[in-house]
Amino acid sequence: MKKIDHIGVAVKNLEASNDLFSKLFNRKPFHHETLETQQLNVSFFKLEDTKVELLEPISEKSTVHKFLQTKGEGIHHVAFEVDDIYAEMERLKNEGFLPLTEKPYVGALNKLVCFFHPKTTNGVLVELCQKVQH
Amino acid sequence: MKKIDHIGVAVKNLEASNDLFSKLFNRKPFHHETLETQQLNVSFFKLEDTKVELLEPISEKSTVHKFLQTKGEGIHHVAFEVDDIYAEMERLKNEGFLPLTEKPYVGALNKLVCFFHPKTTNGVLVELCQKVQH
Repeated sequence: MKKIDHIGVAVKNLEASNDLFSKLFNRKPFHHETLETQQLNVSFFKLEDTKVELLEPISEKSTVHKFLQTKGEGIHHVAFEVDDIYAEMERLKNEGFLPLTEKPYVGALNKLVCFFHPKTTNGVLVELCQKVQH
Repeated sequence: MKKIDHIGVAVKNLEASNDLFSKLFNRKPFHHETLETQQLNVSFFKLEDTKVELLEPISEKSTVHKFLQTKGEGIHHVAFEVDDIYAEMERLKNEGFLPLTEKPYVGALNKLVCFFHPKTTNGVLVELCQKVQH
């Protein structure tokens, strides 16, 4: 695990929150994306080599929809950059952490990602993400 | 605002959580500190130029004690590094964000810090922190 790559923030209205965080960070989001498989619209703000991702659910099927209903808007997850997501998943499984999927999959910004259940990490939803070489 | 400096995680038992996060990050915390004014024991893990801070309240006076009671363990705040905390506080106040204190104060790792109320930032407790030159 190398460093914090980004934090993800659950929001109800991406357009309104893009405006709010543009004021906070004094810059515009550099990227927008719809993640059909996660039923999310997302935007990203760049802060040097870290990022902040805003997550707006586009249907009730999204896990972020449930998060908003039970916890309200706020920090949803923290993502750490890794060099070898398969090796790191294996190491964490052996340490007793519980992955949410069997294997990594393609997430936002075309990265390979996986998540670990917050119940094994003091309530913190942990994402691993790896840049894919082209 | 430059980049994510660290995230803060509220925990009930710092010793147990140090062990848990040592497994997660595959390294030990590099720093421990008691913040009397905040009534907190904290530890820090280094992940390249980012950090993860664990926060354990040492009395019921700590705001983290209240956080644990209402929300349970989890991500408590995100801190962004700034070069001039006074100028950045002023800019954010003018944008409508609500600081929790009138002025910055000395926090963990001897940095100048201030916080902004989560109700003005989509539920995200935002910290600004600045390295102090010696």
